[in-house]
Amino acid sequence: MNAETDGTELVEQLLAGKHRALARVITRIENRAPGYRDLVSRLHRHTGDAEVVGITGSPGAGKSTLVDKLANYYREQGETVGVIAVDPSSPFTGGAVLGDRIRMASNVGDMDVFFRSMSARGTLGGLSTATTDAVKALDAFGKDKILIETVGAGQNEIDVVKSADTVAVLVPPGSGDDVQMLKAGILEIADVFVVNKADLDGADRTVQELREMVHMQEDNTATLATGHHGASAVATESEGSDDATGGNDDAGDWDPEIVETVAKDGTGVAELVETLANHRAHLEATGRLAEKARMRYAEEIRNLLRDDVGRLLEDEIERRGGMEELVGDVVARETDPYSVADEVIEPLAECLEE
Amino acid sequence: MNAETDGTELVEQLLAGKHRALARVITRIENRAPGYRDLVSRLHRHTGDAEVVGITGSPGAGKSTLVDKLANYYREQGETVGVIAVDPSSPFTGGAVLGDRIRMASNVGDMDVFFRSMSARGTLGGLSTATTDAVKALDAFGKDKILIETVGAGQNEIDVVKSADTVAVLVPPGSGDDVQMLKAGILEIADVFVVNKADLDGADRTVQELREMVHMQEDNTATLATGHHGASAVATESEGSDDATGGNDDAGDWDPEIVETVAKDGTGVAELVETLANHRAHLEATGRLAEKARMRYAEEIRNLLRDDVGRLLEDEIERRGGMEELVGDVVARETDPYSVADEVIEPLAECLEE
Repeated sequence: MNAETDGTELVEQLLAGKHRALARVITRIENRAPGYRDLVSRLHRHTGDAEVVGITGSPGAGKSTLVDKLANYYREQGETVGVIAVDPSSPFTGGAVLGDRIRMASNVGDMDVFFRSMSARGTLGGLSTATTDAVKALDAFGKDKILIETVGAGQNEIDVVKSADTVAVLVPPGSGDDVQMLKAGILEIADVFVVNKADLDGADRTVQELREMVHMQEDNTATLATGHHGASAVATESEGSDDATGGNDDAGDWDPEIVETVAKDGTGVAELVETLANHRAHLEATGRLAEKARMRYAEEIRNLLRDDVGRLLEDEIERRGGMEELVGDVVARETDPYSVADEVIEPLAECLEE
Repeated sequence: MNAETDGTELVEQLLAGKHRALARVITRIENRAPGYRDLVSRLHRHTGDAEVVGITGSPGAGKSTLVDKLANYYREQGETVGVIAVDPSSPFTGGAVLGDRIRMASNVGDMDVFFRSMSARGTLGGLSTATTDAVKALDAFGKDKILIETVGAGQNEIDVVKSADTVAVLVPPGSGDDVQMLKAGILEIADVFVVNKADLDGADRTVQELREMVHMQEDNTATLATGHHGASAVATESEGSDDATGGNDDAGDWDPEIVETVAKDGTGVAELVETLANHRAHLEATGRLAEKARMRYAEEIRNLLRDDVGRLLEDEIERRGGMEELVGDVVARETDPYSVADEVIEPLAECLEE
């Protein structure tokens, strides 16, 4: 094994703080290069100290600019930062991603902000595993803050930001429709809503709509928990970023906070940083941080098992003459899909029960 | 085994044309009742004669009324009809589904239109398997036409209508935004676009937008195939339901047709029936019908294997002390997710390679 492919040396260099090694590890993770599993296995014991923030939202919400400003803010506070920008809709690296790289040029000389983009590779669910693994590489490297930036608001994006402890969802102002659409899936994952471009017309209304949505949710929770109804609806008109947590009696609950920013001139970035830190502190105080980590590991194990066993099954299908052959028998009505599945599974089931 | 649970007798009754047995088989399929796999296995050899049409579209597009009218039209032509209405967004049977049943009351005395609703049961992917199985029951029963009706346009709905040979997508008029949104995933599965409520304002524009979209697609295909560009864009203004296929040189291709209907008074239903029949004839003539069946069986087998092996893995995790225990070791950094996956998979891999 030469130096180029030697995982041990690569891991040592990464742990010693070499950004080149970090970049190469992430490339291997992204390409599922031979030996990448072993790399990630070895990194695991060095992880667990980074604070991971996911940032998502529809295109044009200003994520790139905000992530850039956030990274710089952390850097100025003396923290090291890793950014992973994920585009689940694109199978290619390039295009917007190239733009991202240019955008981050202000940090190029400053390697304590390590920027990396990743794109979908066609493997279903593969991107969220790759993101989780890349976060581990950054974590093991010793980055204090890791930002996962992803475009859009579909299931893939939700899966990607699930690798984060805290999730911020960007909402462009004046987007009444978008607030409606957020309700599908995004509300559940948002810890912080960021109304970016807060200087534009419609920002107040968007903040108001988000606030009503959060209170409605909070109200539902309160009703379920105590049978009490209506108090938080009255509080809808109150001001301040902490109003969403004002009525929060249950220590385990966190009602999404709403922060207004103007990323391009840095307005609100300090407040966003504080809110993200508050959420982190909340997670730690309530034990939710450890609980989330446990849930993530369980999901990680299940995802890996599903992928691995999928490959085993494909091999087994090949050994039985291939899918074409099996389907041929089904078409000829000599067998049927359930019987085929039973036959393929049977040896596995027997073997496991031994 | 008593008569209530005897699969053999149930299958015999279904094949003998007893609607009660058909209803009970579908209930067992929907509930994954013990022995349902065996039932579906036995039915398989009696399938393959029905024409299966999937009908989807956003809520309010008028699917229910149109399906009702289609079913009646087929019935008047002397064909037997089975309808499966699937609501992937609802975990419950009831509500809209109850409405469906009332809606179908005009056919209640006429059991040659067999109507059945199914809803999601929380199992991921389970609904498309259940739909496929229910279609088999109707097919084996001897229904000439099977209509699968599903609400919405998400991945679940797409999976559900994939059980059909021909897919019709309903588009409400005046919905420029909807036409835009259709582009994500739906365009690929639509064989026929139905602009229902064609008497409303905006219907012409919706037809026009759909036509442009179809021609753009067709144009792209033509460009890819021959390098020729622009001809079908010129044809955008042409009229008639067969214009979309006018420039179709490749016998294997089918460009989605656009049909206008007013379901509530039956306008356009005859034309829709003809278009669906044309698509079916095209599938048969080009060999695509057999090819689609083969692809569906392959996917069916893969889905069943994935579900089965998922259960095996859960059992294996239990045998190793349960997921909590495995995760505990990962949290303690005694092991990591990849190593855990390797350990669980190893015995399966070894056993298969023997």
